[in-house]
Amino acid sequence: MTALPATPAPATSLPAAYLPGPVNPPARLLMGPGPIDADPRVLRALSTPLIGQYDPVMTGYMNDTMALYRQVWATTNEATFLVDGTSRAGIEAALVSLVRPGQRVLVPVFGRFGHLLTEIAHRAQAEVHTVEAPWGQVVTPAAVEEAVVRVRPHLLAVVQGDTSTTMCQPLEDLGEICARHGVLFYTDATASLGGNPFEADAWGLDAATAGLQKCLAGPSGSAPITLSPRAVEVVRARSRVEAGIREEGDADADDPIRSNYFDLGMILDYWGPRRLNHHTEATSMLYAARECARILLEEGRQAVIDRHALHGRAMLAGVRGLGLQVFGDVAHKMHNVVAVEIPAGLDGDAGRAAMLADFGIEIGTSFGPLHGRVWRIGTMGYNARQDTVLLTLAALEQVLRRGGVRVPPGGGVDAAYAVYDEVRAP
Amino acid sequence: MTALPATPAPATSLPAAYLPGPVNPPARLLMGPGPIDADPRVLRALSTPLIGQYDPVMTGYMNDTMALYRQVWATTNEATFLVDGTSRAGIEAALVSLVRPGQRVLVPVFGRFGHLLTEIAHRAQAEVHTVEAPWGQVVTPAAVEEAVVRVRPHLLAVVQGDTSTTMCQPLEDLGEICARHGVLFYTDATASLGGNPFEADAWGLDAATAGLQKCLAGPSGSAPITLSPRAVEVVRARSRVEAGIREEGDADADDPIRSNYFDLGMILDYWGPRRLNHHTEATSMLYAARECARILLEEGRQAVIDRHALHGRAMLAGVRGLGLQVFGDVAHKMHNVVAVEIPAGLDGDAGRAAMLADFGIEIGTSFGPLHGRVWRIGTMGYNARQDTVLLTLAALEQVLRRGGVRVPPGGGVDAAYAVYDEVRAP
Repeated sequence: MTALPATPAPATSLPAAYLPGPVNPPARLLMGPGPIDADPRVLRALSTPLIGQYDPVMTGYMNDTMALYRQVWATTNEATFLVDGTSRAGIEAALVSLVRPGQRVLVPVFGRFGHLLTEIAHRAQAEVHTVEAPWGQVVTPAAVEEAVVRVRPHLLAVVQGDTSTTMCQPLEDLGEICARHGVLFYTDATASLGGNPFEADAWGLDAATAGLQKCLAGPSGSAPITLSPRAVEVVRARSRVEAGIREEGDADADDPIRSNYFDLGMILDYWGPRRLNHHTEATSMLYAARECARILLEEGRQAVIDRHALHGRAMLAGVRGLGLQVFGDVAHKMHNVVAVEIPAGLDGDAGRAAMLADFGIEIGTSFGPLHGRVWRIGTMGYNARQDTVLLTLAALEQVLRRGGVRVPPGGGVDAAYAVYDEVRAP
Repeated sequence: MTALPATPAPATSLPAAYLPGPVNPPARLLMGPGPIDADPRVLRALSTPLIGQYDPVMTGYMNDTMALYRQVWATTNEATFLVDGTSRAGIEAALVSLVRPGQRVLVPVFGRFGHLLTEIAHRAQAEVHTVEAPWGQVVTPAAVEEAVVRVRPHLLAVVQGDTSTTMCQPLEDLGEICARHGVLFYTDATASLGGNPFEADAWGLDAATAGLQKCLAGPSGSAPITLSPRAVEVVRARSRVEAGIREEGDADADDPIRSNYFDLGMILDYWGPRRLNHHTEATSMLYAARECARILLEEGRQAVIDRHALHGRAMLAGVRGLGLQVFGDVAHKMHNVVAVEIPAGLDGDAGRAAMLADFGIEIGTSFGPLHGRVWRIGTMGYNARQDTVLLTLAALEQVLRRGGVRVPPGGGVDAAYAVYDEVRAP
């Protein structure tokens, strides 16, 4: 028992009266590492009137959402749904539901979001082991397998696309390694899903989570998740129906998942045929998530990946055309974001501020060792387009020039055009 | 270590192709226990274009949101912000951040949502004690104090308004009891905030959480929270800055809060002056939460409570005017919801289905011992209005009549009119 601080004196003041106007943000083009501009169709879906959580129409929308995200994830997993929170909520739900305290988790770390997985796994009281690659590189399958053999983890947890470094960890060989050694295989695809190849079933994934605010062109606040039948079995072994709605014969594990909100078994009971009350579904965010998947599938999963590849290539060529150095192993870069070294002598934050204040374009900084060293420029979701790429390069040229950096006039835009012309050539 | 289920065979099939149309829900009037129809202003706020999470304009919106909710909660607590998830996420964030494993939590239980608090506290590995009242009643301050003295809890956690029974637990005497015995005082005000008196500071609360989908007239998916300076001290004692963004000298408690997503210290660092990255704020839901508070404060906090009281009284008179029995201790009913006994011989679910399918009006069922025994009818948020009350009573009369129940023709509407006429009389 920790002693409590002394009881405070009774309040004697009232909160300050303050009534600001409605939200009315300035025009922004969000070309950072995410969130990016939501597709206007998603914004319209968000403003759709609410219906009750057990309305048959709502049940239909929930079932639609499951069916749509099975296609997005490329999986036949029945357990494909949303966690009501940001992408990080999806990660925590997966880890806390799949891992018991004391179980070993192996995390390949090659950027800030690998550290996040270790952090969340630590909080879940897992025994956490890492296999590290320098920021700007990815981890080899051989290094992962070596660590799997050494650590014998219950779960391999790996970030697919780590926006802090822009690296995209190849996953296609890891499922087989996990299968060979009886390890559960989870990935955080928040930054990558939609813009880069992803094959939940073909790659042998047991669990994957994401968010809407990157290549899916929606707002942060809903976390798509998919669980293999094997992962569902693991979750179900700790099932519990909560007091207050429990009926005779209902499961009541003596070592339940150490979170109610993130208990994927309970969330499954809410999304599944039993429709047992858990949280009250975040209806507006479900509308948004459903529309994000609809937009992606209308264009076509491969077409969306190809579009991200094209505009990512154009942006990469463009920043090089401006004479900027690109950070990291470009062969393993995500399609949807590039990290460029801030030119010597230029204040990176001042450059970003000029982009935002004068041109209305947001680009990103980075974390930890890369803060102040690179800018991160995204081309994702709704903003993976030619006009956004050319505008960003045109504005960046001016900001660099006015900051005293020698830039080839038009060098960024010309290089991007060259990429587009190549694609359009007969 | 639990053995894993056998490795599944590689996937051989693709998910079914399915592309439904956009969300296009039928017209509904949501008169259940919540969620209810969002105010159209909130729906419009939801469709506002996104901006970056570190955009100075976004920082302003976050600060606005804090200032607005201080007024909603009637508190000067600096630590007043949003948890990105449904109301249940707010509860779990409060409990997991304020209570260490093994600490004692006392929960007055008088309905399903008291059970929920015990459930969440159990998951946080607290030692949970309860003081119970029969469903339909509230707990007396004397019973709470007796239990506080006996249990010596670290935290008293109590639901203010439990929609399962419609009861509103008086809180005004509990703060003093907690202060006397050195106990932290937390309440879940999800169902009650806005529609019933609430005074965070005057009542000596250390923590309170809510959701938007009841009297605040917004969608589920964002959880307003306020923490007293004393609660912040308790949270800060377990502070940790996460790996990947930690700098020299940053806190790194050896017994950190057992959730990353719900670590209120980290969420405070994100909302506070340091603006340390944690989750990516759910921008659209923040827009909604901000607009909910603006709407409430424009009308005036007391005026909104009075409006809920008036229309709640009219609905209560109306259902009685239809000859229906009201469940529970009406003197302690929340303003915004009433539970009516389903008349003998009528199938309650069929009655609700007729209300929804034929009249477009949703009313609620209940949980556990009350399922099939009562309907719950809400008058809250945007739907605490005369037209919604009269329409619901008019439709309910027809459904009862066609279900073979003897009802006084116009008995519900007349009784409600009588309440309104009384208010309007000179």
